[in-house]
Amino acid sequence: MTRSEDDRLSQIFAALANPTRRAILARLAEGEATVNELAEPFEMSLPAISKHIKVLERAGLITQGQKAQFRPCTIDITPLEEISRWTEQYRHIWETSFDRMDDYIHQLSGNQPKET
Amino acid sequence: MTRSEDDRLSQIFAALANPTRRAILARLAEGEATVNELAEPFEMSLPAISKHIKVLERAGLITQGQKAQFRPCTIDITPLEEISRWTEQYRHIWETSFDRMDDYIHQLSGNQPKET
Repeated sequence: MTRSEDDRLSQIFAALANPTRRAILARLAEGEATVNELAEPFEMSLPAISKHIKVLERAGLITQGQKAQFRPCTIDITPLEEISRWTEQYRHIWETSFDRMDDYIHQLSGNQPKET
Repeated sequence: MTRSEDDRLSQIFAALANPTRRAILARLAEGEATVNELAEPFEMSLPAISKHIKVLERAGLITQGQKAQFRPCTIDITPLEEISRWTEQYRHIWETSFDRMDDYIHQLSGNQPKET
């Protein structure tokens, strides 16, 4: 992994480390929305929401037109695919854990552990 | 999603938003290691590495014995499964994007778009 890929992953993870920003993404997954529409469900000022939107935009998670208040925001799922790929490299560990638990349950119930 | 689940996800994402902490996890995926062994590949002081380990521990990504210098750290992949599940909810969007790209390539090559 190059330095810039590493920095990019850090930026995506940091952008996702906030419940309001994740809620904004969940809203945009249903379709595009203006900043005003995004601000509505939150007890937050428009500048506060705009700040969150900027963090998501810098991480590449949303795209937005130039006239921020009126142009709709759109979700871009490319960074989420990157996160998903990064997480996948650890899948073999949790699948091994499930196999071990499965063997243990077999043993408890008096059966032989399954062949691996 | 409850408030505490939301806070937990934020804590996991924040812990992953750092290349050194992700490198520590990658090392621990190969097997347990002491703090000294973890510090070795990095040009960092032991206290700096210990600080990163504490962030990972608070996010539930690693477990560690009480005598930090001597007891090995172990990866706990439960939080990575949570991240994976969270990301999965957006999979339908990128799969739809792939389908659209597939249709477009079919059109370019003179074929009809596939049935959906």
